[in-house]
Amino acid sequence: MNSTAPLDVGDHQHATFPEGLDLECGVHLAPVDVAYRTYGTLSAKRDNAIVVCHAFTGDQYVADIHPLTGKPGWWGRMVGPGRPIDTNRFFVICMNVLGGCMGSTGPRSLRTDGKGNGTERWGTDFPPITIRDMVRAQHMLVRHLGIERLFAVVGGSMGGMQVLEWAVTYPHMMLAAMPIATAPYHSAQNIAFNEVGRQSIFADPDWHGGRYWQQGVVPARGLAVARMMAHITYLSEEALTRKFGRRVRKDPSNAQAPEASLSMFSDVFEVESYLRYQGSAFVRRFDANSYLTITRAMDWFDLAAEHDGELPAAFAGTPVRFCVVSFSSDWLFPTSSARYLVRALNQAAANVSFVEIDTDKGHDSFLLDEPDFDRTVRGFLCGVAEHAGLA
Amino acid sequence: MNSTAPLDVGDHQHATFPEGLDLECGVHLAPVDVAYRTYGTLSAKRDNAIVVCHAFTGDQYVADIHPLTGKPGWWGRMVGPGRPIDTNRFFVICMNVLGGCMGSTGPRSLRTDGKGNGTERWGTDFPPITIRDMVRAQHMLVRHLGIERLFAVVGGSMGGMQVLEWAVTYPHMMLAAMPIATAPYHSAQNIAFNEVGRQSIFADPDWHGGRYWQQGVVPARGLAVARMMAHITYLSEEALTRKFGRRVRKDPSNAQAPEASLSMFSDVFEVESYLRYQGSAFVRRFDANSYLTITRAMDWFDLAAEHDGELPAAFAGTPVRFCVVSFSSDWLFPTSSARYLVRALNQAAANVSFVEIDTDKGHDSFLLDEPDFDRTVRGFLCGVAEHAGLA
Repeated sequence: MNSTAPLDVGDHQHATFPEGLDLECGVHLAPVDVAYRTYGTLSAKRDNAIVVCHAFTGDQYVADIHPLTGKPGWWGRMVGPGRPIDTNRFFVICMNVLGGCMGSTGPRSLRTDGKGNGTERWGTDFPPITIRDMVRAQHMLVRHLGIERLFAVVGGSMGGMQVLEWAVTYPHMMLAAMPIATAPYHSAQNIAFNEVGRQSIFADPDWHGGRYWQQGVVPARGLAVARMMAHITYLSEEALTRKFGRRVRKDPSNAQAPEASLSMFSDVFEVESYLRYQGSAFVRRFDANSYLTITRAMDWFDLAAEHDGELPAAFAGTPVRFCVVSFSSDWLFPTSSARYLVRALNQAAANVSFVEIDTDKGHDSFLLDEPDFDRTVRGFLCGVAEHAGLA
Repeated sequence: MNSTAPLDVGDHQHATFPEGLDLECGVHLAPVDVAYRTYGTLSAKRDNAIVVCHAFTGDQYVADIHPLTGKPGWWGRMVGPGRPIDTNRFFVICMNVLGGCMGSTGPRSLRTDGKGNGTERWGTDFPPITIRDMVRAQHMLVRHLGIERLFAVVGGSMGGMQVLEWAVTYPHMMLAAMPIATAPYHSAQNIAFNEVGRQSIFADPDWHGGRYWQQGVVPARGLAVARMMAHITYLSEEALTRKFGRRVRKDPSNAQAPEASLSMFSDVFEVESYLRYQGSAFVRRFDANSYLTITRAMDWFDLAAEHDGELPAAFAGTPVRFCVVSFSSDWLFPTSSARYLVRALNQAAANVSFVEIDTDKGHDSFLLDEPDFDRTVRGFLCGVAEHAGLA
């Protein structure tokens, strides 16, 4: 957590849309950059494209080495040749969300509202973004790639919110939707956790009202605390107990101390050491202003509210085939939220299947080794392809 | 959260023990002050005393006006004339825990290890405290009051840990034990949440390595963030949804803004406003160094580990009558922990009853209006009194 040097996010493959977007907040944002990665080959008929939507702190590096961390992509086990989302067969597109910090227009971008001298970044003056705004930016890129109809849109957590928004906004542009570990609205508890994360960033002395770039620092400590807390919510109590239990990592400088001498602040439980690592690794790849912008977008997400409080109305007459997935130990987006979504889809007479994966790994299960989940993804995509005559 | 003035905790009713205590960490701490409040009258036979153990951020003001906040005591609905813990019948003692900040010896106290010039406070040099140390300090006060045998020891959350430690350390000094919403060890998830709170305090620019008193400030922002996060864990998702849902408190300065204009950072969800209030109220009555000391004591609590990993061995041959209480929606100390405790008590052939209260109010249920819980407390105490011939 000593990494307070400004974040250099480098350069990313992207498209620029000079016409920009009319955002839901009423602001016209232009130009808009959309950074993206693709995997596999677009078919001659352009009918095999799958949009993968990333979660809150994810990015477009689904299945190749991440340029900042040097680590494999976040969903390499799901996307690739022979994988459940098989790139021998499908053309996969993943885009950094609007408001993000990996190349798409966001708070790190130079401001284009005529204020500042052309070298100033948006920071907290970046206009508020909604999940629908993110999806409309993705839609521009999909059209830019010459694709008129997607085979599917797939994503977990906040990615699942985007999947739902895609299905509601562009129902005739996609055959299938797979919202995973998500909900059609952000709950009071989830808003509460996001708010604590934001307050932690605001409390950092290096926050500087969001203009930390001008000071050559980043609010690394506040951002790390926010990440540590959020990380707990991504796991289950069972997973934490299995991985760490109450094991203690002895401070080497206390190794010779008698057993009776508790070194309560230098010896740390392994779960503490793990969280500290998660926090400090995160601040090297993520921007605090994007943290604020994106958590706010999640908090405001409420599909029913966009349709006079009636969730089934959001899906009325939809031709999209849905497969809703939840994980039994996910307490951030619990199965009850998925059931609420499925009931609304059923009321709208949509084509929907629902799978609850039995696992103790918590919300993050969709990123982990869950063979049942792999089979669900592969099976659903094969079924849709067969039904569409693409087999 | 702008309250950065040093905490003035005032003067409290207390007893001073010049002989002090040999702490589990190996340090001899002397003198030791124990601040306390009593309610009701000690019987001539001195057989009607109940020790109430307070939770993490509680204190000895169980049933009278709190001197700092001016608010009623934290368990006034449970303790008082005619209440379930009836002060017409019982003599109730509640003591601020060792390591606390309401008059018992803790990190705010002047250091007595010969370092400093006699005007310096312990701060982070205060020796690490365990739950057993807290209970041994309470034991000194109980003996000081001339009581050789307690009628009962009762407490929730960290107070329940103390109840268990009382029963294990002084089984022949008490008739009954009522551990509520607690566990015989702190789980990995609970340690994880505590660690995030500590890191939030460390990240505050006003922390000053724990010597904030010397600077005339307190790390109010970090402490408030820690409290906000912890507060979420005290409630359930259902309780948050029922109390706040997704309701928004409009910023008055934006009241005239068109509906389409989202004021995402000025308008706040009611749950956010509530948490911010909880955070800022907390820092006016609680000390950051005590926060560290006490969370550490909880983290290290593991009754089985004190008995070669065998929890039933901790209770072997116990004459104490136990009533274990859990709440169905408590996810911080879930019913599964209570069942684990009850199984161990059964294996030790202890006299134990177990009640799970069905409620959606979460961990904090033991402080709230739960008639079933009130009946359980009253019933258990009456039953024990009858059995002991005190009826």
